[in-house]
Amino acid sequence: MKNRQIILVTRPEGLPKAADFRLIESEMRAPDEGQFLVRTEFLSVDPYMRGRIGDQESYAEPVALGDVMVGGTVGTVLESRHPDYHAGDVVVGYWGWQEYTISDGHDIQRFDTSLAPMSTALGVLGMPGMTAYFGLLDIGQPEPGETVFVSGAAGAVGSMVGQIAKIKGCIVAGSAGSQAKVQHLLTDLGFDAAFSYKDVTDYTTWLREMCPQGIDVYYDNVGGPLTDAVFTHINQRARIVVCGQIDQYNATRPARGPRLLWHLIVKRARAEGFLVFDFAHRYREAQEQIAQWLQEGKVKYRETIVDGLESAPEAFIGLFRGDNLGKQLVRVASE
Amino acid sequence: MKNRQIILVTRPEGLPKAADFRLIESEMRAPDEGQFLVRTEFLSVDPYMRGRIGDQESYAEPVALGDVMVGGTVGTVLESRHPDYHAGDVVVGYWGWQEYTISDGHDIQRFDTSLAPMSTALGVLGMPGMTAYFGLLDIGQPEPGETVFVSGAAGAVGSMVGQIAKIKGCIVAGSAGSQAKVQHLLTDLGFDAAFSYKDVTDYTTWLREMCPQGIDVYYDNVGGPLTDAVFTHINQRARIVVCGQIDQYNATRPARGPRLLWHLIVKRARAEGFLVFDFAHRYREAQEQIAQWLQEGKVKYRETIVDGLESAPEAFIGLFRGDNLGKQLVRVASE
Repeated sequence: MKNRQIILVTRPEGLPKAADFRLIESEMRAPDEGQFLVRTEFLSVDPYMRGRIGDQESYAEPVALGDVMVGGTVGTVLESRHPDYHAGDVVVGYWGWQEYTISDGHDIQRFDTSLAPMSTALGVLGMPGMTAYFGLLDIGQPEPGETVFVSGAAGAVGSMVGQIAKIKGCIVAGSAGSQAKVQHLLTDLGFDAAFSYKDVTDYTTWLREMCPQGIDVYYDNVGGPLTDAVFTHINQRARIVVCGQIDQYNATRPARGPRLLWHLIVKRARAEGFLVFDFAHRYREAQEQIAQWLQEGKVKYRETIVDGLESAPEAFIGLFRGDNLGKQLVRVASE
Repeated sequence: MKNRQIILVTRPEGLPKAADFRLIESEMRAPDEGQFLVRTEFLSVDPYMRGRIGDQESYAEPVALGDVMVGGTVGTVLESRHPDYHAGDVVVGYWGWQEYTISDGHDIQRFDTSLAPMSTALGVLGMPGMTAYFGLLDIGQPEPGETVFVSGAAGAVGSMVGQIAKIKGCIVAGSAGSQAKVQHLLTDLGFDAAFSYKDVTDYTTWLREMCPQGIDVYYDNVGGPLTDAVFTHINQRARIVVCGQIDQYNATRPARGPRLLWHLIVKRARAEGFLVFDFAHRYREAQEQIAQWLQEGKVKYRETIVDGLESAPEAFIGLFRGDNLGKQLVRVASE
């Protein structure tokens, strides 16, 4: 059996391009005793993956040239010689951009499709959902009536942050990359205010208008000039959840901007980074809560899906243009 | 009776200059019933006061032009018509750059000179001591064996931060503005490592050498390029206590530098500002603890004292040149 895989062939300079990746075909062996074979159904592309293919310092080792590109994946067990896994089981893991993988189960979790469709294992019930849940609630600690502003609000993480903040009784505003996304935030997701950063130059004026009571929690997926403006509009004891800085992921030289730490003194404020993996022991709690919100209709999600393993590089690159609404997925298995 | 006062006459552009202040003489009335007259013994000049005379946003209203310059003060009650205060009592307050004040007691605290000399009411047992104590222990939360790095380490706040961190079992390194100060940190205050930022250009290399186990707590009095370098050398879950940014206090345009928030993600780190006034209900606890350390010889302090009210502007300006070792004071009353 053949396994098609996408490998990293060059480290991108700036914005990744299709030629940084290559599709190869390798022979797929059968599972040994204690192993099982998984067919990839969906793979996830996420902004953080830019950090895995560059040479900047990051929180994980970079993908080696020639290695299969990393990323979250969900799939179906096709054949098993493992006592706990059976053909038809749906599993979620991190085997990257390839059609098949073999596992002994230790790097894979079972996914309960009675909770929600399997694609949500990479979205609202997966890493983006966990990132939104713990980043907002544990790092941001919003109180009812406080104003939460989220950048990258129409993305997989941001759209969950906004909805959870609404559930918690906050006033919620966000920025996104198009008027269509802004409409989605306002109409479908219940945001109180939103603007398209691509159609605005004076962020400060917009922030004042959208968040008339100032900003108590800033959930930052973006960084850059928008974040600079937010720092001038935070309230006393504000919490800045530093989740992502997509504005800088493709920078070819260290990004510069106004020095921001003084604002933290003036406002007795806190800026804190986090990694979702630190909350792994509490994923179950978050998944059950989010699944319940889904069933109650309190949380909605959108997916932008492209077909075919070979579409993965373009889908990934599209994240930095803002092509996606909600979770960007690649459907790998053609039923 | 005459009261000599120093008023603010112009808002400084950049570094304050003597001509921004003016010495005036006014008539001093006698205290009314329920009031008492205080003679200023020492006044305090501190870097944060730059923020009170500029037009940048800060955490307090600026001093109005023509008003007496603000600042911490300690003095002796000369004459009292207040039931709880008597001639000879030593009191500490915030009546600013003038020889006398009249108080009804509500903006003044009694100072117990059995704890330490009255000048310490403006230093180790005063605002700088409180700032060091709560900033390090409550915001920085250092653990034994962790590395604490403090910028502005030979100043009134920094020198206390370093010594308290040593008491708490930390490895302590710091930066200061001269080789003499570095020697003081190493020889007198027990710092494990120190360097003069004025004699070094490549901060990163020095930080690596001085803090071979990385930096767990950064107590930042300075900001600017030194802070940029520290951000590249923090450990996982580092805490950055943002106390002061003296590097930027005299900037005539918004300071720019490398964007730093990404480091907070990579290191799951936290940067937090604070104001010492938020801990006012716990000053007593800190004063008793620091007084005990003083008596046990575990904490030492230095003062740089100049004489005469008219010396206050120069003493203040000198802070930004790093003229002071330890607490900079102006002795106002000539015995």
